[in-house]
Amino acid sequence: MVNSLLSSDEIAKHNNATSCWVIIHGKAYDVTEFLPEHPGGSKIILKYAGKDATESVLTIGFAPNFSQEFEPIHPPDTLDKYLDRSKHMGEVDMSTVVVEAKTVDPSESERQEYIKNKPSLEQCYNLLDFEAVAKRVMKRTAWAYYSSGADDEITLRENHAAFHRIWFRPKILVNVENIDMSTTMLGTKVSIPFYVTATALGKLGHHEGEVVLTKAAAKHSVVQMIPTLASCSFDEIVDAKEDTQVQWLQLYVNKNRAITKSIVKHAERRGCKALFITVDAPQLGRREKDMRTKFDDSGASVQSASEKPVDRSQGAARAISSFIDPSLSWKDIPWFRSITNMKIVLKGVQRVEDVIKACEIGVDGVVLSNHGGRQLDTAPSGIEILAATMPILKAKGLDKKLEIFIDGGIRRASDIVKAICLGAKGVGIGRPFLYAMSAYGLPGVDRAMQLLKDEMEMNMRLIGAPSIADLDDSMVDTRAVALHSTPIEDALSAKTYDPLVAPAFKSKL
Amino acid sequence: MVNSLLSSDEIAKHNNATSCWVIIHGKAYDVTEFLPEHPGGSKIILKYAGKDATESVLTIGFAPNFSQEFEPIHPPDTLDKYLDRSKHMGEVDMSTVVVEAKTVDPSESERQEYIKNKPSLEQCYNLLDFEAVAKRVMKRTAWAYYSSGADDEITLRENHAAFHRIWFRPKILVNVENIDMSTTMLGTKVSIPFYVTATALGKLGHHEGEVVLTKAAAKHSVVQMIPTLASCSFDEIVDAKEDTQVQWLQLYVNKNRAITKSIVKHAERRGCKALFITVDAPQLGRREKDMRTKFDDSGASVQSASEKPVDRSQGAARAISSFIDPSLSWKDIPWFRSITNMKIVLKGVQRVEDVIKACEIGVDGVVLSNHGGRQLDTAPSGIEILAATMPILKAKGLDKKLEIFIDGGIRRASDIVKAICLGAKGVGIGRPFLYAMSAYGLPGVDRAMQLLKDEMEMNMRLIGAPSIADLDDSMVDTRAVALHSTPIEDALSAKTYDPLVAPAFKSKL
Amino acid sequence: MVNSLLSSDEIAKHNNATSCWVIIHGKAYDVTEFLPEHPGGSKIILKYAGKDATESVLTIGFAPNFSQEFEPIHPPDTLDKYLDRSKHMGEVDMSTVVVEAKTVDPSESERQEYIKNKPSLEQCYNLLDFEAVAKRVMKRTAWAYYSSGADDEITLRENHAAFHRIWFRPKILVNVENIDMSTTMLGTKVSIPFYVTATALGKLGHHEGEVVLTKAAAKHSVVQMIPTLASCSFDEIVDAKEDTQVQWLQLYVNKNRAITKSIVKHAERRGCKALFITVDAPQLGRREKDMRTKFDDSGASVQSASEKPVDRSQGAARAISSFIDPSLSWKDIPWFRSITNMKIVLKGVQRVEDVIKACEIGVDGVVLSNHGGRQLDTAPSGIEILAATMPILKAKGLDKKLEIFIDGGIRRASDIVKAICLGAKGVGIGRPFLYAMSAYGLPGVDRAMQLLKDEMEMNMRLIGAPSIADLDDSMVDTRAVALHSTPIEDALSAKTYDPLVAPAFKSKL
Amino acid sequence: MVNSLLSSDEIAKHNNATSCWVIIHGKAYDVTEFLPEHPGGSKIILKYAGKDATESVLTIGFAPNFSQEFEPIHPPDTLDKYLDRSKHMGEVDMSTVVVEAKTVDPSESERQEYIKNKPSLEQCYNLLDFEAVAKRVMKRTAWAYYSSGADDEITLRENHAAFHRIWFRPKILVNVENIDMSTTMLGTKVSIPFYVTATALGKLGHHEGEVVLTKAAAKHSVVQMIPTLASCSFDEIVDAKEDTQVQWLQLYVNKNRAITKSIVKHAERRGCKALFITVDAPQLGRREKDMRTKFDDSGASVQSASEKPVDRSQGAARAISSFIDPSLSWKDIPWFRSITNMKIVLKGVQRVEDVIKACEIGVDGVVLSNHGGRQLDTAPSGIEILAATMPILKAKGLDKKLEIFIDGGIRRASDIVKAICLGAKGVGIGRPFLYAMSAYGLPGVDRAMQLLKDEMEMNMRLIGAPSIADLDDSMVDTRAVALHSTPIEDALSAKTYDPLVAPAFKSKL
Repeated sequence: MVNSLLSSDEIAKHNNATSCWVIIHGKAYDVTEFLPEHPGGSKIILKYAGKDATESVLTIGFAPNFSQEFEPIHPPDTLDKYLDRSKHMGEVDMSTVVVEAKTVDPSESERQEYIKNKPSLEQCYNLLDFEAVAKRVMKRTAWAYYSSGADDEITLRENHAAFHRIWFRPKILVNVENIDMSTTMLGTKVSIPFYVTATALGKLGHHEGEVVLTKAAAKHSVVQMIPTLASCSFDEIVDAKEDTQVQWLQLYVNKNRAITKSIVKHAERRGCKALFITVDAPQLGRREKDMRTKFDDSGASVQSASEKPVDRSQGAARAISSFIDPSLSWKDIPWFRSITNMKIVLKGVQRVEDVIKACEIGVDGVVLSNHGGRQLDTAPSGIEILAATMPILKAKGLDKKLEIFIDGGIRRASDIVKAICLGAKGVGIGRPFLYAMSAYGLPGVDRAMQLLKDEMEMNMRLIGAPSIADLDDSMVDTRAVALHSTPIEDALSAKTYDPLVAPAFKSKL
Repeated sequence: MVNSLLSSDEIAKHNNATSCWVIIHGKAYDVTEFLPEHPGGSKIILKYAGKDATESVLTIGFAPNFSQEFEPIHPPDTLDKYLDRSKHMGEVDMSTVVVEAKTVDPSESERQEYIKNKPSLEQCYNLLDFEAVAKRVMKRTAWAYYSSGADDEITLRENHAAFHRIWFRPKILVNVENIDMSTTMLGTKVSIPFYVTATALGKLGHHEGEVVLTKAAAKHSVVQMIPTLASCSFDEIVDAKEDTQVQWLQLYVNKNRAITKSIVKHAERRGCKALFITVDAPQLGRREKDMRTKFDDSGASVQSASEKPVDRSQGAARAISSFIDPSLSWKDIPWFRSITNMKIVLKGVQRVEDVIKACEIGVDGVVLSNHGGRQLDTAPSGIEILAATMPILKAKGLDKKLEIFIDGGIRRASDIVKAICLGAKGVGIGRPFLYAMSAYGLPGVDRAMQLLKDEMEMNMRLIGAPSIADLDDSMVDTRAVALHSTPIEDALSAKTYDPLVAPAFKSKL
Repeated sequence: MVNSLLSSDEIAKHNNATSCWVIIHGKAYDVTEFLPEHPGGSKIILKYAGKDATESVLTIGFAPNFSQEFEPIHPPDTLDKYLDRSKHMGEVDMSTVVVEAKTVDPSESERQEYIKNKPSLEQCYNLLDFEAVAKRVMKRTAWAYYSSGADDEITLRENHAAFHRIWFRPKILVNVENIDMSTTMLGTKVSIPFYVTATALGKLGHHEGEVVLTKAAAKHSVVQMIPTLASCSFDEIVDAKEDTQVQWLQLYVNKNRAITKSIVKHAERRGCKALFITVDAPQLGRREKDMRTKFDDSGASVQSASEKPVDRSQGAARAISSFIDPSLSWKDIPWFRSITNMKIVLKGVQRVEDVIKACEIGVDGVVLSNHGGRQLDTAPSGIEILAATMPILKAKGLDKKLEIFIDGGIRRASDIVKAICLGAKGVGIGRPFLYAMSAYGLPGVDRAMQLLKDEMEMNMRLIGAPSIADLDDSMVDTRAVALHSTPIEDALSAKTYDPLVAPAFKSKL
Repeated sequence: MVNSLLSSDEIAKHNNATSCWVIIHGKAYDVTEFLPEHPGGSKIILKYAGKDATESVLTIGFAPNFSQEFEPIHPPDTLDKYLDRSKHMGEVDMSTVVVEAKTVDPSESERQEYIKNKPSLEQCYNLLDFEAVAKRVMKRTAWAYYSSGADDEITLRENHAAFHRIWFRPKILVNVENIDMSTTMLGTKVSIPFYVTATALGKLGHHEGEVVLTKAAAKHSVVQMIPTLASCSFDEIVDAKEDTQVQWLQLYVNKNRAITKSIVKHAERRGCKALFITVDAPQLGRREKDMRTKFDDSGASVQSASEKPVDRSQGAARAISSFIDPSLSWKDIPWFRSITNMKIVLKGVQRVEDVIKACEIGVDGVVLSNHGGRQLDTAPSGIEILAATMPILKAKGLDKKLEIFIDGGIRRASDIVKAICLGAKGVGIGRPFLYAMSAYGLPGVDRAMQLLKDEMEMNMRLIGAPSIADLDDSMVDTRAVALHSTPIEDALSAKTYDPLVAPAFKSKL
């Protein structure tokens, strides 16, 4: 094997669009065929043609699927698993590779200053505080990837805002000395009704990636949902769990059902208790904030007529189609039941008609979700869908047929309380834990979870509900949740609009 | 002919209000009779009395009708067509004309800097991005003409804002592998349900004018509507089209029906497939942002009692009356049917009662539109009218009797999807393409259209509709669209209002 | 008479709270008894005790009733009429009065700069433009008096904002070649359905006072309502009118009905056609912006325990009670009918029940008004009351029994159109004309009125109504006018509130 | 006794977590057992271990219960009453204590400047003005304690904002010469329908504490409610009252009912007329603004793994549980009736169902309140609950069974008028008087009350109600009060959110 090491010179020959090799973590890959499909344009890859791209992928971090990104924000086994063997060109003799001087991101030195002056963990009193810190101490590109949403990010913000249109109707003079916030989800006992939902690319925020979340979930007796697009490998995440800890698997269904089947079977074997099939992402949404952050001006400045920018998006669409199956439909669901005994939950249901279908087809649960505002903009929040759905399910006698979860926008335990009052079995929380992890590592996630528990205990006392079962829909006023008369601010057009002005005085005073 | 060339001296004699000649592109015109009608005051023209005004008309660009402006923002044949022959004084010996030093607009050098530093086309990810760039790189006066709306510009902004009060109800688990966004409009197959609607004075934004839009429309297989008030001549625009490309004609109806008839007949002969009669502009709206930008202080400073400013607006109203017929009424519509076989569409319908009338009178379609917010302020958006109209049409069985289009405020493919869900056959897009053209020329418009297609494909996938026919009104929640409790900001009064303050401390700290 | 001239020395003896004389325009007055009632505190008057106060009253301009202010912002005959003869101490030998150096208001020099650089009148394109100019060029105190409203000025702003919650439903294809915007009000033919409503203290804005408005009203064939609290005397205003010009009288009812009767009789004799009895001001509202502007720090700094600030407001209330009769009630209305043949209108009606009472008691009209937002804060706008009232009146068959007017917040002709559509006979406009007058004198008011006419003509064309009679309630959508879910900003508490902040980084970057 | 004085050296031995003594006002206390329960972490106390902490407690002012704070913001008898005798270590020979140099708060010198330049009392025209002044002149920590609310402070702000969604429907032509704003509350005649509600820790704002409010209440003939957590002792407050003055007692119910009984009995003996049992605070809410202000960075920087921050909140919860009884329930209410003849009122009722229960159980009144927005965030305002409750009570014939009060957000007499119109017997006002006291002492509170009376008189005149009995629900339009479509701003997420931006130009201009 040592003899077959490739030299830097060998690789340097493949430095153009006709033949483009890159080095990633000591191995060479032929990415020529991928060039026209790269959403950021081929130029950004051609910069590394014939060179070592390991470092760059950390800072570019483009998009959450294999063909757009490399290790180390992807599991170490990704290339082996998904890139055609013929494109694995072999190991490289790294001693022959000259380290290039890195270009310095002007915002990077400011970030380093922020890191030095980071508030202490104790100063974070709620989940939004972690986000405020993470925004400053995370790499610009990583922050953009985590925080961005689809199009105008209206749904992204509506997710949290919707909770503010639900008001409490607290009970008084209830004995609330002992608060029990434990409940069950899909048969698993949990200490509080939230779970860590699946989010991609954990290593963008913290070098250890998703296992940080595994450890925090263990400590707080909550369930972790393992993402298909994790930075750590599935097995690394399962290996990190404690004996009695429960994990679920989030699944993007691959066109190649054999791959999907092997993933599902493997997860079940490794002890996963439930399968959450993502149904709101037949194509990944456009997150312009993320795109804008990743834009490489040096690539653009040499733009030529031959590389038509208008073709790139289609390329991205196709690239994604090759991985996630856009043809997935209701008729595929029974097949999943046939290959696994795990509980099956549809993640991303967005209207009551589809909840009813889910009941009829016999899945164990649904997550009312819009994918964290990252897919279809101006899709409603999970909490609004929940408020609209439960009365209909109850009227049809279907409300006990499956467990209903929501995710999106949860930042306070009061948000959780509202969801439970409205009939949810639990809520998924994603970004807040990523931010806590990115800013403070495991202690950050630990504190974030504890803060939620403290808030939850207080809220249950103050609303007059000593146990989860005591939370009911008489305790919330949802009349305003669907009253969308006040728009979420549309930053792009608000800023582009030129407001009318009064007549100008002849000279400025 | 050479002998009859007029000398600069000859023209210079006509340098006052009694006899005022100006040179436009080498020809002399007697505009004495027009002086009292000029909306900017006669002074602004008298500055050019007896001189060459060619250059000035580009920067002044006052208003979209012949009598207020000249070439080159008007078609080269305008003067020949509309100004009375007796006022064409003949060609000028330009060698006798001394070029005057231009006055420098202080904002112009800033604009030149912006142009030098313009973002690359690839950095525009959506239609609003083009607008943000155009705002900086366009001439101040041109920007004001394109971007302005009537009065407080409330309708202008409401047009886009209304879409944000409509929320999606996406379907999941629909096979969306193949998305077909093609449809037909008035019998023409189009690749996506939008058309390039008519907008005036394209040369303000790009020296080639409307033919840029013609070429982009061809490339993307969409229809272009040719404006009456184009900068290019009608024939130039038709000549620029490709063989199979379809164009429509937008028509301001002239008091002189003979002129109107000849325009209509000519359009039909040249292959136009439909006639869009503008019905929302018996008088052109007041666009104060535009007026303010055009205000010439040098003219104002010598204002005298004899030129009463209060008379000018009436002058403008009369000036416009002489061109567009304010007496146009329902009884004129059958006449159009009698003179053409083109499809006939009423553009600017604003209430359901008039849509029903349009059905009864037998036109082929209507455009629910408020003229891009440029006419009656606080008129509702097309999308709101659509949401109110379709249920009534359906109840009356009239919804298949004509094709319904909307325009105004469309900036995202999701806006298009909402219109289609609510029953529109297609939507017109105007300003965004003007901005893309002004900022980046044909490649800009090309990219703008492609971005819409990319967004459209994604949105149809994410809402669970593989074809246009799959988009239905169960997919949108319109309950808030008519909930006008949150006002569009009223910039003039908001800024003029003096907010209350707390008691002042004796010294500032 | 010459012999009886008072010397400066004589007056200077009365320079304290025990005996306080002031000189106003060459005459001495004993204001000792008034001292404890002065809303600004007695100190502010004591500064002028024994001195000439003529100049100061122009800049102080406290409040619109006799006992708080002097000439020249009051009619020249006010002192003779209302101050007890015994307090008229006689004429002063002004040659003996030493002119004191004026204290310079620091904002005054800035104002002078603004005046020098005032935009030309032609640059004002709408009524708000005049307000923006007036704000800069008016004396600070005069601006505060005109522009202020009650308490948090919520009603003040709601008055205009309410119009933005009413949307048009324009008709198309109506022959609008000839627009006739004339109508009648209380039997008088007017060129456009607005009138100049009564506003106090015109000389604060322009040295000629209300006669400026008289002349402008004549020019535009609209009615002027003469205010009780005018700066010009009633006769000066009537003398300024043209032969056929119609005026109305606004009346604050005096406790002394003999005075009221003489005012009413005199007005009728001088040709006034209607009597508008103010019914929304049994006590004048607190306008804190005005109070704050007038606050004299020098007075305050020597504040002592003996002058209890808490007593002053009561004093002000009592002071006002002595002039305006707070006991005025429905049973007084027949008496007015008995003393005059003028039309009688109640100004300031604020709920439908009282409009019905007005019908029953047989007055000729009502003005739905909240006194320009200067009385009870969070009282609704006239336009909202109108929208609520007319359907009830129609249902009861009362809508033809009297003429209904509204005032408050009208800034655009579209606001007028909305009121007419909803059943108003006309609208009153106050502040905008004061601002136009203050900024540009008569030409300003003239232009303001012409702009309204231009807008009105355009709006009637664009809504499809060639005459006032064509404006009906199908042309407006009022569903949102009573939807008060979006608050008018509460500036005081918004600014006082300390928003939550994220954890602080240890050092600022 | 002199002999038993403890020396500084003796105390200095107990300077660690194993044995921690502190000196407070010359006495030593053993607080070792309290260390793990301190919400600010034990470190902040350990800084004073073995030292004099008297000064620090004024500036730290953490939370309103014994175990978290010391004298002097607590009554002088608190330690004697509540801390176990065994922890009172005896008096200290203060001559042996070395005074440590104080750390200087950088914001403190700015505050001193503000104090020097404080506006004069006469410049405060309304209750918000006092708040604006207090914000600048109060100690940062005291301001934070008074002004903070729970979580995102949404309920805190909603309390006042809700009043702005209620609009008046004033009557005209009512004889309002004589206004009588007196009424009764629980049998006591008062001059105006507000009372001074209970607020904790008055000495944070003014060195004399709650007795300032006692004196002001006496002067204005209104009732004062004495807080359990007052800074002055109960007896000091009662001693300060005038003979005929009426006081009520606010009660946090202690787990040890013997203590509660002795407090109640004592209050009755001392003449209190009513007992207000707080029912909305089984646990004290989290007020992050307060927590953030108190954060001690020096403590945090030496944070170690052994002091887990996540445990502290639970500690706080337990600490509070030891004082306020979270098991208090409906079945305890009859016991209160058995031990006292005072009127009994439940303070903090938040839904109509509980008002009905209160009627059934036979208490004399309820306060619809959310504890000034300091407990459960997104609980609705008292005024909204009132508007929802009264129609139901009336329908059930229960509206005369008890007296209903509200508190929270009252800043204007118009707010009081709205509450009375809707059926409240009176309103409680807390913070505004604290701010007036903090900024100007007794004259401040005096003026604040007088301003409310002046506003009240004016408002009753302007709404057409000469007496309290004339205020009825036809005078208010409450349709919008429950329309929560416009959110209260969520400052933390609004500021953390990164708005989308347009493409950047290559260089900044």
